[in-house]
Amino acid sequence: MNRNVQTFLGCDAQYGRADIVLFGAPFDGTTSFRPGARFGPSAMRNESFGMETYSPYCERDLTEMRICDVGDLELPFGNTEAALSLIQRRTAEIYAAGKRPVLLGGEHLVTLGALRAALQVYPDLCILHLDAHTDLRDDYLGEPLSHACVLRRIWELTGDGRIFQFGIRSGTREEFAFADSHMALHRFDLSGWAETLQTLGDRPVYLTLDLDVLDPAFLPGTGTPEAGGVSFMALLTAILQLHKIRLIGCDIVELAPHYDVSGASTAAACKITREILLQMKGA
Amino acid sequence: MNRNVQTFLGCDAQYGRADIVLFGAPFDGTTSFRPGARFGPSAMRNESFGMETYSPYCERDLTEMRICDVGDLELPFGNTEAALSLIQRRTAEIYAAGKRPVLLGGEHLVTLGALRAALQVYPDLCILHLDAHTDLRDDYLGEPLSHACVLRRIWELTGDGRIFQFGIRSGTREEFAFADSHMALHRFDLSGWAETLQTLGDRPVYLTLDLDVLDPAFLPGTGTPEAGGVSFMALLTAILQLHKIRLIGCDIVELAPHYDVSGASTAAACKITREILLQMKGA
Amino acid sequence: MNRNVQTFLGCDAQYGRADIVLFGAPFDGTTSFRPGARFGPSAMRNESFGMETYSPYCERDLTEMRICDVGDLELPFGNTEAALSLIQRRTAEIYAAGKRPVLLGGEHLVTLGALRAALQVYPDLCILHLDAHTDLRDDYLGEPLSHACVLRRIWELTGDGRIFQFGIRSGTREEFAFADSHMALHRFDLSGWAETLQTLGDRPVYLTLDLDVLDPAFLPGTGTPEAGGVSFMALLTAILQLHKIRLIGCDIVELAPHYDVSGASTAAACKITREILLQMKGA
Amino acid sequence: MNRNVQTFLGCDAQYGRADIVLFGAPFDGTTSFRPGARFGPSAMRNESFGMETYSPYCERDLTEMRICDVGDLELPFGNTEAALSLIQRRTAEIYAAGKRPVLLGGEHLVTLGALRAALQVYPDLCILHLDAHTDLRDDYLGEPLSHACVLRRIWELTGDGRIFQFGIRSGTREEFAFADSHMALHRFDLSGWAETLQTLGDRPVYLTLDLDVLDPAFLPGTGTPEAGGVSFMALLTAILQLHKIRLIGCDIVELAPHYDVSGASTAAACKITREILLQMKGA
Amino acid sequence: MNRNVQTFLGCDAQYGRADIVLFGAPFDGTTSFRPGARFGPSAMRNESFGMETYSPYCERDLTEMRICDVGDLELPFGNTEAALSLIQRRTAEIYAAGKRPVLLGGEHLVTLGALRAALQVYPDLCILHLDAHTDLRDDYLGEPLSHACVLRRIWELTGDGRIFQFGIRSGTREEFAFADSHMALHRFDLSGWAETLQTLGDRPVYLTLDLDVLDPAFLPGTGTPEAGGVSFMALLTAILQLHKIRLIGCDIVELAPHYDVSGASTAAACKITREILLQMKGA
Amino acid sequence: MNRNVQTFLGCDAQYGRADIVLFGAPFDGTTSFRPGARFGPSAMRNESFGMETYSPYCERDLTEMRICDVGDLELPFGNTEAALSLIQRRTAEIYAAGKRPVLLGGEHLVTLGALRAALQVYPDLCILHLDAHTDLRDDYLGEPLSHACVLRRIWELTGDGRIFQFGIRSGTREEFAFADSHMALHRFDLSGWAETLQTLGDRPVYLTLDLDVLDPAFLPGTGTPEAGGVSFMALLTAILQLHKIRLIGCDIVELAPHYDVSGASTAAACKITREILLQMKGA
Repeated sequence: MNRNVQTFLGCDAQYGRADIVLFGAPFDGTTSFRPGARFGPSAMRNESFGMETYSPYCERDLTEMRICDVGDLELPFGNTEAALSLIQRRTAEIYAAGKRPVLLGGEHLVTLGALRAALQVYPDLCILHLDAHTDLRDDYLGEPLSHACVLRRIWELTGDGRIFQFGIRSGTREEFAFADSHMALHRFDLSGWAETLQTLGDRPVYLTLDLDVLDPAFLPGTGTPEAGGVSFMALLTAILQLHKIRLIGCDIVELAPHYDVSGASTAAACKITREILLQMKGA
Repeated sequence: MNRNVQTFLGCDAQYGRADIVLFGAPFDGTTSFRPGARFGPSAMRNESFGMETYSPYCERDLTEMRICDVGDLELPFGNTEAALSLIQRRTAEIYAAGKRPVLLGGEHLVTLGALRAALQVYPDLCILHLDAHTDLRDDYLGEPLSHACVLRRIWELTGDGRIFQFGIRSGTREEFAFADSHMALHRFDLSGWAETLQTLGDRPVYLTLDLDVLDPAFLPGTGTPEAGGVSFMALLTAILQLHKIRLIGCDIVELAPHYDVSGASTAAACKITREILLQMKGA
Repeated sequence: MNRNVQTFLGCDAQYGRADIVLFGAPFDGTTSFRPGARFGPSAMRNESFGMETYSPYCERDLTEMRICDVGDLELPFGNTEAALSLIQRRTAEIYAAGKRPVLLGGEHLVTLGALRAALQVYPDLCILHLDAHTDLRDDYLGEPLSHACVLRRIWELTGDGRIFQFGIRSGTREEFAFADSHMALHRFDLSGWAETLQTLGDRPVYLTLDLDVLDPAFLPGTGTPEAGGVSFMALLTAILQLHKIRLIGCDIVELAPHYDVSGASTAAACKITREILLQMKGA
Repeated sequence: MNRNVQTFLGCDAQYGRADIVLFGAPFDGTTSFRPGARFGPSAMRNESFGMETYSPYCERDLTEMRICDVGDLELPFGNTEAALSLIQRRTAEIYAAGKRPVLLGGEHLVTLGALRAALQVYPDLCILHLDAHTDLRDDYLGEPLSHACVLRRIWELTGDGRIFQFGIRSGTREEFAFADSHMALHRFDLSGWAETLQTLGDRPVYLTLDLDVLDPAFLPGTGTPEAGGVSFMALLTAILQLHKIRLIGCDIVELAPHYDVSGASTAAACKITREILLQMKGA
Repeated sequence: MNRNVQTFLGCDAQYGRADIVLFGAPFDGTTSFRPGARFGPSAMRNESFGMETYSPYCERDLTEMRICDVGDLELPFGNTEAALSLIQRRTAEIYAAGKRPVLLGGEHLVTLGALRAALQVYPDLCILHLDAHTDLRDDYLGEPLSHACVLRRIWELTGDGRIFQFGIRSGTREEFAFADSHMALHRFDLSGWAETLQTLGDRPVYLTLDLDVLDPAFLPGTGTPEAGGVSFMALLTAILQLHKIRLIGCDIVELAPHYDVSGASTAAACKITREILLQMKGA
Repeated sequence: MNRNVQTFLGCDAQYGRADIVLFGAPFDGTTSFRPGARFGPSAMRNESFGMETYSPYCERDLTEMRICDVGDLELPFGNTEAALSLIQRRTAEIYAAGKRPVLLGGEHLVTLGALRAALQVYPDLCILHLDAHTDLRDDYLGEPLSHACVLRRIWELTGDGRIFQFGIRSGTREEFAFADSHMALHRFDLSGWAETLQTLGDRPVYLTLDLDVLDPAFLPGTGTPEAGGVSFMALLTAILQLHKIRLIGCDIVELAPHYDVSGASTAAACKITREILLQMKGA
């Protein structure tokens, strides 16, 4: 009789044979407003069974790939740095095994752990950042390790010109000014996406997708819903072009499933994740 | 003192004088993922009182028509075939009385009951099928009578070329191939709608509307929300052309009202139903 | 140690120094269908802390303005006229102090109280009315003071040609006919907005924004969600032109926050309110 | 084909043949804190179908009685006195037809309408009042017609010594003093119930049951949950003795079903209503 | 790196080494009123992580036992007999391997599948049945395989005197009469429990626990909440005596977790399951 | 015109004149299972307006006391020690001003901040600890500053014999052994309460009330509901004896209001807080 193994839809390859490794970081310890992103990964696994493995958009099927879902990290609430170190270590192990990581958050700060590891392997990587918020504060109530500061911390590791932001529609005046000076900032929507992908060429790229880039109409289940975002189809259209670049890792963060009891937010997150995984097929 | 009669908005004609008969099939016994479509008809009756009988879109009023809401069938959970037979019998009675049926689901399988009866009366009818899902599996976990198979069962009754699918964005690779071979499949949205209506000319047409053809932004209250659907206005625009064809019956299925506590899904379903009824005025 | 003062985001000027005074009218005593608009103002204050004071749309910041939130009126449920009088008195006090009022509802009837006061000061003011519903009934179950009659009551004060309606998509045949005769009625959406603003020139204008003008996809948290409305971005685009006219007061009504547990409706209402306030900067 | 008649469980006698007439007063227009009691009657009808007509407690069955549910009154929100008059008129009609009324609220103020009529027929009736709250304010924010004042208004009609209160655990110091002077006040629980019934002998008695007399553990679905109430079994035990007195009418009020999404509150209200009806069998 | 194995708390023994095997039957296909028991097993696994493995009541720890959770059966909705057969087969396999089954429902009908297998091994077993409902209908809307008939079906296999019912407080007059004739019926509560256990001596006993035996105050998350039930402590006290008998299998059914968003129902179900498992230690 | 000051019911004394100072610590940063206690203080302020200031239990009124609610601390999520320091500092200020603190949590760890300050002033104080959980782990996933360790940390400051635990029903075997050795542990309920109060005599006592000591039937709105707790009336009865001891401070923690949408949990927490405050009157 089998053990009760739970994975994200179709991600049931054995670890040794997998090209891509999916894992969850159920952490929202610095969320200042409304917590709940910690429930994102398990909700996505549970609800992904309502979805097909086949995509009629790109005409590929998850069953034709080798992806292993290794489950969630156990992260200590109350010690942010310890949590980030565990995420970094897991990401580094995946790279060391010659595989690519796909991280399910959790709040956006988890990206910092993954990128610390990715930058060890690909010191010149670029970052595609989709988000409603700039996330460029220097500190939040005195704390430098906060979801509100994560892109600032990452910029400290990469320097200017390596981060491409899309969909941003909330931040302080100072954050917008900082983004204009140090990043490629695309306000409000995804215009400039195709050009950016072309610019990136064959450089290694890490995608960090804060799901609140979507309008709350399409994804109300997130901690800080920000009206005026992109539609699901606009995001999907952008995702469907990712096969043109060299994606060496990614994360999907800030699904807070309990705020959308309809399950539609989780379903949308699952579908976007499926499409991202399918775009990683050939790389 | 009056009895406490509950009807869908404005559908209070006496049965004998009615041209159109509305009834509910509160059945979701084969729903594999998330049940609740059984609550659709009663929710629609309750919430329709927040809506006007007049449509500013087509400038008609439900009070100018003769529609009788006869309430819900009492269907046995656990015996799918018995439930379908009861739906078939009720539909046949309505046709025998020279009236047209409008069926409120329930899960999509209820359509099979209604179409068995409709095909007795109109052996050459065509079917307009709006849905997010192909519903073309041959069986689901061994069961041929499943919501996931309903269009396949119907195709077995009609044969090729009689079913026109719109909005489909989820299914297996095999289902999409099957649809391409045997149906007129319009992927993702409603493009081709006007041409299809023209093609149908004055042939008898049955409309089966799975409400999940709508994007979950507009109708989160359904069992299997599938992102990337059509907007409410796109659907409404399509509906407003139905007076051009000869609609001999229809169903509106898969509202699962409890998944949308805001009531907006039920309100949208009521409004679409009102507009469909108003399009049936002249026919 | 400070007192626990709660204000809408950034509206913490002292009353004496304020140019704009924001207050709440938590009244929904005539709501016939689904109550809850009474909880709108407190929800907006609580949730506005998830939002920035800076707008990247108009590049202004609430902290650069002088706005005082004086909290909510205490209104007697069960006595509609008494409630309206208290709203009228508060509005009159604000005008008497040389300030402009911004009223958070509550149901739409609260607008009548504010406009009675505004018309004392600006007898020739015009009214921009955004709404899903005509609100032009002469009475509702015999009651003339009802949310369903509020624009009719206001029209009795202003006469023809002073009210400009946008987004209207629900009403009786008679109400639409009345609107066509006595108002500038823009059905379904915001087309004609720019022309209307130009027409208004420098006349004093009062804006009454029933949030259900938004499609329920963007704002499900309202008492009577009416599908087929405008998108958040369409509304925001219209709002961003308000600096072109002379806005002497406004209200934002019919947020019923409990119907949207995701908080997205309240967040959208807060963002629209922020943008309206920022448009009032220069006037 | 039948019309879609909805009744409370088993209350489907024809009006002419009925001994007891049940009707709903879906009014909560003076509710100052959290509205929703207006949804009580329809929720009870819908949910009563999950319950049996037979009671193993008293070994009687609703099908052995003749009860007619005539549905809900249509009451104007915003005009309290008009609503009360309609309730009074309906109650008077029932008495005039030689039947006994059972009123489903709605907020507690609806009792005033029913009692005005009952006191016309039975000028010497006594009142059993179960409640968490004294409801003895002279006015509430200046309004004498408020749920918070309903027993005070009734006392003005009956005078001292005719009202027996049980379960009361909330009120002002003044209200408790008033109750001690003018009523038979039983604080906190139902002690003294049996003695009171004995005292009442064969005098006509009206029962007004505010469901918040139950502890919120047993009935969280009410507008003002007040901890420290009686258990369901304690209330049921009291109800099961009602056959000993001459019950000439009753109401069950303040179920606000939406605050308890489990449905357990509505189910408890239905069960209590069934047991009260069964106690009225022989009278 | 490990696979993502999910088990009920502490039930992580390897199948081969286990004494007790826990499995889920997520089936609610005959539920006539409110579905959702299908979500019981997965909710219990997810939420059991908020609970300790140690019980201060019996001073035992799950980690000192060898229990294997093999996950959920995949059951076809729409084919009741097929679902029962799969449950029967799984139960039989467990007995064949010399282990004892613990089944998590699912609706109560799943018990029939398990008992068919148990009766093969222990033809003389007795049944402890805790429930709010008699479940003794001969058929339900014509269907013999229904949750409302499950004890009747089981009685057909065991004959008179082998079934001991506790807590029963809902049913038809006929069902209560049937129970009085053919079973040991303990109405309303658990009185007679200790005597019954003594009577059972060392005969093999199967326990079927419908969680709605609990009062809805303690477990609102069930399909048909029935007021007037036993308290959690009363049930726990009864459970803590089970070590005195020879328990050869059991089930815990009718948790419908979504109806209790607080999670308290699921937590109570987990705790009761933990205590039952701990009582099975020595047997 | 007044500022919009929000306080817990009746706690509107000026700081300088207050004897008791109430403040909130909206922190749940170490909550490992289900967050949300951060919303406790604001929910209690909002909902306390549904409650009277007068208590019929002790016949006192909050308006006869001088209590100042100074609102919530702004605490940095992600830095536990910083949050504790801010709580400690606020508590110390209150003591320095000759007043007594009442702290509304937040998670239970906030108690550590308050007690560090209280022990500076009253080095010999004793602690009354009501809780479902031992909270005596030495660390949780390596972290010593966790809600699961708070009483262990406090014991390190007080040593043996100063902590009196009541209602405890969950913990590891080791935690129970630790409690038996170092504390006065009262398992499961409040037996021994009166004797303990007598023992305490006139020693300074700090009360820490984890609301999950209540059975989830009475307070489902908490992060880790643990069945088998005490009833509201049992807790209230215990509280009503507190005037017999010298209470120098207290906290009420672990209300997570969003898990109980009925509001009954928040209402119960408010009522308990009112009664505790009233017991502090004479001290």
